[in-house]
Amino acid sequence: MNYKKLGKILGKILILEGILMLAPLAVSIIYQESLTHILAFLIPIVAVAAIGFLLQLPKPKRNTLYQKEGFALTALVWLVMTLFGAIPFVINGDIPNYIDACFEIMSGFTTTGASIISDISTISHSSLFWRSLSHWIGGMGILVFVLIFIPESNDGSSMHLLRAESPGPQVGKLVSKMKVTTRILYLIYLGLTVLEVIILMLDKPIPGYENEQFFFSLLTAFGCAGTGGFGFIPGSLELFHPFSQYVIAIFLLLFGINFSLYYLLLIGKVRDVLRSEEFKSYFLIITLAVFFVFLSLVGRFEAFPQVYSTEQAFRHSLFQVASLITTTGFTTTDYNVWPMLGRTVLVMVMFIGAMAGSTAGGIKISRIIIAIKGAYINVRKLINPRYVPKAKFEGKTLEQQTINDVFAFITLYFFLLLAAVFLLSFDPVNGTEVQIASDAGSYTVEHGFFSNFSSVLACISNIGPAFEAVGPYASYAGYSSFSKIILTLTMLLGRLEILPVLILFNKRTWKKFS
Amino acid sequence: MNYKKLGKILGKILILEGILMLAPLAVSIIYQESLTHILAFLIPIVAVAAIGFLLQLPKPKRNTLYQKEGFALTALVWLVMTLFGAIPFVINGDIPNYIDACFEIMSGFTTTGASIISDISTISHSSLFWRSLSHWIGGMGILVFVLIFIPESNDGSSMHLLRAESPGPQVGKLVSKMKVTTRILYLIYLGLTVLEVIILMLDKPIPGYENEQFFFSLLTAFGCAGTGGFGFIPGSLELFHPFSQYVIAIFLLLFGINFSLYYLLLIGKVRDVLRSEEFKSYFLIITLAVFFVFLSLVGRFEAFPQVYSTEQAFRHSLFQVASLITTTGFTTTDYNVWPMLGRTVLVMVMFIGAMAGSTAGGIKISRIIIAIKGAYINVRKLINPRYVPKAKFEGKTLEQQTINDVFAFITLYFFLLLAAVFLLSFDPVNGTEVQIASDAGSYTVEHGFFSNFSSVLACISNIGPAFEAVGPYASYAGYSSFSKIILTLTMLLGRLEILPVLILFNKRTWKKFS
Repeated sequence: MNYKKLGKILGKILILEGILMLAPLAVSIIYQESLTHILAFLIPIVAVAAIGFLLQLPKPKRNTLYQKEGFALTALVWLVMTLFGAIPFVINGDIPNYIDACFEIMSGFTTTGASIISDISTISHSSLFWRSLSHWIGGMGILVFVLIFIPESNDGSSMHLLRAESPGPQVGKLVSKMKVTTRILYLIYLGLTVLEVIILMLDKPIPGYENEQFFFSLLTAFGCAGTGGFGFIPGSLELFHPFSQYVIAIFLLLFGINFSLYYLLLIGKVRDVLRSEEFKSYFLIITLAVFFVFLSLVGRFEAFPQVYSTEQAFRHSLFQVASLITTTGFTTTDYNVWPMLGRTVLVMVMFIGAMAGSTAGGIKISRIIIAIKGAYINVRKLINPRYVPKAKFEGKTLEQQTINDVFAFITLYFFLLLAAVFLLSFDPVNGTEVQIASDAGSYTVEHGFFSNFSSVLACISNIGPAFEAVGPYASYAGYSSFSKIILTLTMLLGRLEILPVLILFNKRTWKKFS
Repeated sequence: MNYKKLGKILGKILILEGILMLAPLAVSIIYQESLTHILAFLIPIVAVAAIGFLLQLPKPKRNTLYQKEGFALTALVWLVMTLFGAIPFVINGDIPNYIDACFEIMSGFTTTGASIISDISTISHSSLFWRSLSHWIGGMGILVFVLIFIPESNDGSSMHLLRAESPGPQVGKLVSKMKVTTRILYLIYLGLTVLEVIILMLDKPIPGYENEQFFFSLLTAFGCAGTGGFGFIPGSLELFHPFSQYVIAIFLLLFGINFSLYYLLLIGKVRDVLRSEEFKSYFLIITLAVFFVFLSLVGRFEAFPQVYSTEQAFRHSLFQVASLITTTGFTTTDYNVWPMLGRTVLVMVMFIGAMAGSTAGGIKISRIIIAIKGAYINVRKLINPRYVPKAKFEGKTLEQQTINDVFAFITLYFFLLLAAVFLLSFDPVNGTEVQIASDAGSYTVEHGFFSNFSSVLACISNIGPAFEAVGPYASYAGYSSFSKIILTLTMLLGRLEILPVLILFNKRTWKKFS
């Protein structure tokens, strides 16, 4: 293990985190918050800068990183970023408990958007900004961000980092130089974010929050771009005007698309985009999901409290599907009380997630496609043992190794999900009644099995809101510290797609020779 | 596709089904049931005998079966057995609806034990006997049963059949001749069943059912041996004396053991048995599961209605874990209202299931072990790309192909589970309130997401009772016919471990050349 090189990169990341914290510090000053609020960011900025500087001092003998080091480093970086990123909330008192604060900022960086804040209206502007900014940083990947500043070597170090952090079964380079690739991706990301802010500014302001339109547009765009979904006023985006809700739904779906496709679009290869199997499947799944959710809302085969016009039913169906398939978690209405069909479709898309190479979490559509093709190959092989698989994915031959890796990933995904549900079953919150007030009225719900199951799903798929007692109008505040730590790690497992975290906690990673 | 040979075997199976129906016919006569009840079995016996005879007439040109034919035949046999086996219930009026009757007998043959009967006390002796007998037949496999009577060929036909029907990732022959293997297994199966009946007869009779002790002992032993779990008096086995409940729990666990281990025991290789990894894991998982369930019952960290003595808490913990891990589904108390920890552990063991090569359903412990070892290999490979896996299972090198198959199986298992949950979400029963009366008192429960999720789990793992509105004191009667058909197919998918059923419904299977 190349500790010195590891420390060097970790140090760079910490300095970067310090630089990033300058933004909420500025927000704190602009909104003339108290000295405590300003110090809340100033103190950690000084701390991470100092530690980061010290970590730069030792000279590593070897300047390269092996694969295992790249993976372990990635997981470590996310943990360290979280441990320091949580400090401001504790100092300014917005989230006094450190474990809660870690939960919140891990939820931010991993673009989960699960919150332990019960009353969002008490939170300061600087904290709100830091939370939402963490989505924007975490969406594209912390290390990817750093790669832009690290001198490129030809040993594949940077590829290891990108592989560990990029969602999806394969990592493709757009252009031969890794750094060029990441820059292009970040420019697209930035461009779409800015575009969304501009369009959201065209809407009329939300009544009661007339002076906040730019601030809210920015936070919303951060949440969309990173597919994070932290709310900043009560009821998530319920109070937003229909125009904004439609705009956000469309941007959510745009951020669920593999960013390579935008690059193809930029260089004029429109045909290649339209030919993408994953893109077509993404479009098909969204269409079907919106159709079934809409059907369940207008059909009213099953009673539920809200009364929607057809337009409202369509808007909420589109918004909820877009928000949950991209694993964002913004909401416009209380889907927790919807009919079973609508809720079950939402659970399905929470498992599926959006496209690989986007900022979304979940299993990812490409994996679902590969798994189905793999299963089909297995059936064909049993029908005819001499059958030679010639399955293709995105125009390329589908290697057996890729299929096996996908099956292994999905198996681990479900195993870890169930393991976390088991650990949550020890929580004293189970069986308690939770009072919820939403656009569906006021109602009581028991913290039951579905609460735990959907909480873990919402964390491992980096979504945020779950169902039942942890639904869109509730929070994770009721869980014990033990459960919160479990859920925090679950988010990290989901964001880094399991293996890097397992590598970090494997003792062999830290042996000198292995 | 060798239709004539297929027809010949199918015909043999039908004749066998006719012979098996002689048993409930005899029960009907012994208990002096009405003429309708006698005809209910007599008519289908004549029908299957006639059809079975006609199917014997064509002479197949080729006397062998290819692998795909073996797999498709297996799935077909189970379907046909179900379609004919359901007829008696419709004729004698115990289950007037044919779809319900198919659900019930498929639940019997697949050893699921899920029932659509709301009031078991109205069902005739002959129907009760036929239901429970179907567990006993289905437990070891219908085709395995037939193999004893089919002349053995050396082309591997019989191996294909056994592979399709045997639970678990690998099929081992105990001795070189397949027929000898199956005979040995059936003798062990029969021996354990008879032993259980004898021991159960030692207990004092159940008050109110003094004359039924032998009948009940027989039905219980059928349910245990096949790990089916159909009840025959209200409250499953709640009214049984503690002695019987302990005896049944132990026999359940015995029937969850790989039958090959009994053979090893018989020929004196006790050491090999104790060295079996799957056996040790089975023992460990049961111990842990009983411990945690017991802890949740005596700890009372969460309120629940029943008041148990320590002995009762232990007995119910042991019994419920034994019943659900072996995917049987007998119950002694209403676990539906237990604390979250207890219920979550039960859900876990419902996924896990017992040992491969037993009569139990579920994912199977050997697959769980192989998947965990496979995941560990993947982590090791990432840590050191030159790592050569040397994992072993049961003393043999674990082939990558086996690991891949296990991952593929588990992925399909979860995909099919979620797909079925989606299909059940259309059911009008969702959101309705169900009144339940049990040893926990009388209470109302809503048919929610957990009801559907656990119903599908209980069917695909061949368990029977689920949770919430489909808990141990409720039934599947509330589901629509569409949902019942879905659940019936889910049971078959679970029993035949997915692939044979997929092969049956693949059009290439039925092409002449493929």
